[in-house]
Amino acid sequence: MRIIVIGGKGTIGNAVVKELSPRHELIIAGRTSGDVLCDITSEASIRDMYKKVKDFDAVISCAGEVHFEELSKMSEAFYQVGLKSKLMGQVNLVLLGLPYIRSEGSFTLTAGILSRDPIKAGSSASMVNAAIEGFTRAAAIELPRSIRINAISPTILEESQEAYGAYFRGFNPVPAAKVALAFSKSVEGRQTGQVYEVL
Amino acid sequence: MRIIVIGGKGTIGNAVVKELSPRHELIIAGRTSGDVLCDITSEASIRDMYKKVKDFDAVISCAGEVHFEELSKMSEAFYQVGLKSKLMGQVNLVLLGLPYIRSEGSFTLTAGILSRDPIKAGSSASMVNAAIEGFTRAAAIELPRSIRINAISPTILEESQEAYGAYFRGFNPVPAAKVALAFSKSVEGRQTGQVYEVL
Repeated sequence: MRIIVIGGKGTIGNAVVKELSPRHELIIAGRTSGDVLCDITSEASIRDMYKKVKDFDAVISCAGEVHFEELSKMSEAFYQVGLKSKLMGQVNLVLLGLPYIRSEGSFTLTAGILSRDPIKAGSSASMVNAAIEGFTRAAAIELPRSIRINAISPTILEESQEAYGAYFRGFNPVPAAKVALAFSKSVEGRQTGQVYEVL
Repeated sequence: MRIIVIGGKGTIGNAVVKELSPRHELIIAGRTSGDVLCDITSEASIRDMYKKVKDFDAVISCAGEVHFEELSKMSEAFYQVGLKSKLMGQVNLVLLGLPYIRSEGSFTLTAGILSRDPIKAGSSASMVNAAIEGFTRAAAIELPRSIRINAISPTILEESQEAYGAYFRGFNPVPAAKVALAFSKSVEGRQTGQVYEVL
């Protein structure tokens, strides 16, 4: 298959590339580096990417930011970071990719375990991750031409423990390679509308 | 208790008022009518309402719009309707109400069953309802002064069958009075971080 991996230079993206590159043609997309540039917060940038890549069988998104801050200090502007980037950025990858993706193709988005297992300062992540799950279940029943969509919901990564472990005490970290398997199942299987938790 | 009911003139709001008014002092808030005016899409309007009402024990929100449209015709602008109104409108009721609400008070938001049981043209509702659930679970663990938060997730109402039933074939409608009981449980009980489905 010909697969676009957005955020392919990140921790999860790297693992996804390692898992899928032996079997597929991958096009790495990133904000500042990669085979093609793409800033998912810009509809124009997403459109440019799809026009350049043209035919493809799958879009994997490992991209999207949210703002972490204590609830008492949160404001609409902080929530907008996640709504604009991780939520609508990934939703726009689907909406704008639809005219280009091949029949029986797939979109795989990244959510995260905070949707149902919250931490302090994570209310935006919980909101956005849950929203991605709701969108995924709903979009699945409307996609044309046997196109599929799933979301991957990982817990904290072993590779991110040093940087973020203090915020996730008691969470059992998983290697990014295990998260990559869920992306493989989404792209190489035939399920749709699923949220694969990787715990 | 002194309770603000936002959207108190709507179908669910009416039922909530009927359920709670025998036992509590209710302040009805609406966009165009009520004891106090409030447009939840405007932070200034929410602030004005709280300044006018001052002390209260609970905020009940039965307000918020989303745009229904087939996925292939959806765009960022259509998703923004729901993100701005039903999602951030209700989130701002919490953020901006925090300085005013009494200790041991509660916020009760409205989500909806489409978060996990999608229908055609409902991808925005599924996204927004799921986001409200994720926010509710996360905010609950950070609220100060024993303040609580829950969300109510109703299926289609018997009272709305004539208008919307065609979009919800096979869904078992419930009377608004049954939905009002879930609001009562949220406000008059002591649970927090819960999503009460009313099916």
